[in-house]
Amino acid sequence: MENNLKKQLEGISAITVTPFSNKNGHVDVRKVKENVRFLVDNDIKVIVPCGNTGEYYSLTLEECETVTKTTLQVVEKQASVLVGVGHDTQTAIKQSLFAQENGASGVMIHQPVHPHIKEEGLINYYKEIANAIDIDVVLYVKSNTLTINGYKELQKVKNIVGIKYSLPNVLEFGKIVEELKNWDITWVCGLAESWAPFFYRAGGKGFTSGLVNVTTKKSQELLQYLQECDNSSILKLWNDIRPFEELRAKYEDGNNVAVVKQAMNILFGNYGEVRPPVNYINSEEEKELRRILSDWGLI
Amino acid sequence: MENNLKKQLEGISAITVTPFSNKNGHVDVRKVKENVRFLVDNDIKVIVPCGNTGEYYSLTLEECETVTKTTLQVVEKQASVLVGVGHDTQTAIKQSLFAQENGASGVMIHQPVHPHIKEEGLINYYKEIANAIDIDVVLYVKSNTLTINGYKELQKVKNIVGIKYSLPNVLEFGKIVEELKNWDITWVCGLAESWAPFFYRAGGKGFTSGLVNVTTKKSQELLQYLQECDNSSILKLWNDIRPFEELRAKYEDGNNVAVVKQAMNILFGNYGEVRPPVNYINSEEEKELRRILSDWGLI
Repeated sequence: MENNLKKQLEGISAITVTPFSNKNGHVDVRKVKENVRFLVDNDIKVIVPCGNTGEYYSLTLEECETVTKTTLQVVEKQASVLVGVGHDTQTAIKQSLFAQENGASGVMIHQPVHPHIKEEGLINYYKEIANAIDIDVVLYVKSNTLTINGYKELQKVKNIVGIKYSLPNVLEFGKIVEELKNWDITWVCGLAESWAPFFYRAGGKGFTSGLVNVTTKKSQELLQYLQECDNSSILKLWNDIRPFEELRAKYEDGNNVAVVKQAMNILFGNYGEVRPPVNYINSEEEKELRRILSDWGLI
Repeated sequence: MENNLKKQLEGISAITVTPFSNKNGHVDVRKVKENVRFLVDNDIKVIVPCGNTGEYYSLTLEECETVTKTTLQVVEKQASVLVGVGHDTQTAIKQSLFAQENGASGVMIHQPVHPHIKEEGLINYYKEIANAIDIDVVLYVKSNTLTINGYKELQKVKNIVGIKYSLPNVLEFGKIVEELKNWDITWVCGLAESWAPFFYRAGGKGFTSGLVNVTTKKSQELLQYLQECDNSSILKLWNDIRPFEELRAKYEDGNNVAVVKQAMNILFGNYGEVRPPVNYINSEEEKELRRILSDWGLI
């Protein structure tokens, strides 16, 4: 089956982790492959290396290339690969061209980390990157900078196929989707399983997931229930997933990646530590994590 | 006179701009030199390249090195050079070693841009970078992640000589300075002239400045009044500077660098544009800027 990123975004976008060797802290390429293979074998159709679950901002530019290349080698067109890119415009373009040359379906442009952002400047940032490549583009939106008119200006950029909306404001999200209903893109819930049911109500389709690195089953069931609009099953599953996502949300999301990685360490072994400025979960949290995995029948 | 960064931080820290060529958008090395020379000739004792006024996050890593090296060449020990470093730990260390090898007095570690930060991880981030170098370290604090105990842990890091505190919460700032009064460092107001009078009340000394790239006189007068505790002169001058800083603060600080650069374009010529995700001030704002510069007797 041919990949169609825009369509596949209506499913689950797996944000992969970046495994670090326990020996020297370097990117563990063998484990990158294992992580990606697990997702592809379990029928996940959008693989996103260099996202926030992949500790993008803790990777050097060289490491981003290693992770990107390795992911693309494993996927071999069995899914779309959407590569996270960012930093200054020139670096983002370089990362995007690298993704394109190595066969990615698209790039996800991270929310810029610059301390000063203006709407017109932000639009220029997106345009310069998108116009430098031929593959698809997804915008990872984490600020309210863009107005409806700003989005309309971006509508002119032909290779934008999706917005990964990641603000916990479903009223605003619903308004934006409605106002831009003529824009033929996919509006993705960028806040994972916790928020997906609410984003679906507001016109969203598809969601990103870190959980899916641990087990694909729950996310895939949630997707199915959402597509069927089976509210009681959604609610039950949402509550089943909730303790895991709540553990990730601790310390203002400081545990976000550490919980996923430790679950992978417990289940699959050797996914390594998280890098500063985060650190590992404490023993109480690990106990709680093991309880969740046990409740789920995974250990 | 020998440089002593900790002491000099009690004065003005000039965050330099990064001039871009109008011809090709590249870093204009000749103008970097002119900017730094202007500051040194006007007796500014702490020069900070690669800060936020220098559009750090819009520079490639190579451009950061160019700006750092050029600045150090011009300063030639007539002032302390404090180089902004950041990104992932390895990159921050690489930038810090580059600064050290080229003769910098210290590095200013940017607030990490990672989406997930935990206190212990943040402390590890700071420690790994500080421990990799021999020169002084200033922490650029823009989040509430560190508790008093966190700061106390950092007190063990011998080369930390200052905290550039950049949250507009003077009550919290005052509490932290008081609780850590035995720590022999300089607590710098990281929010420029607008906030310096209030930070001084709470135990701060010295302040960072972008304005100083345009004219050093006002910032130096403010420093003098603050040191003399001349409240009526402080208030008068604060109100004189206010329209400029208010123009910078527009669009949630989106104009922060553009206003400084455009003032330099008007006064000195050829400092170039700002890079995405910001953009230039509009014609109304330029009119207002010219009015301010005219009121100040600069044009």
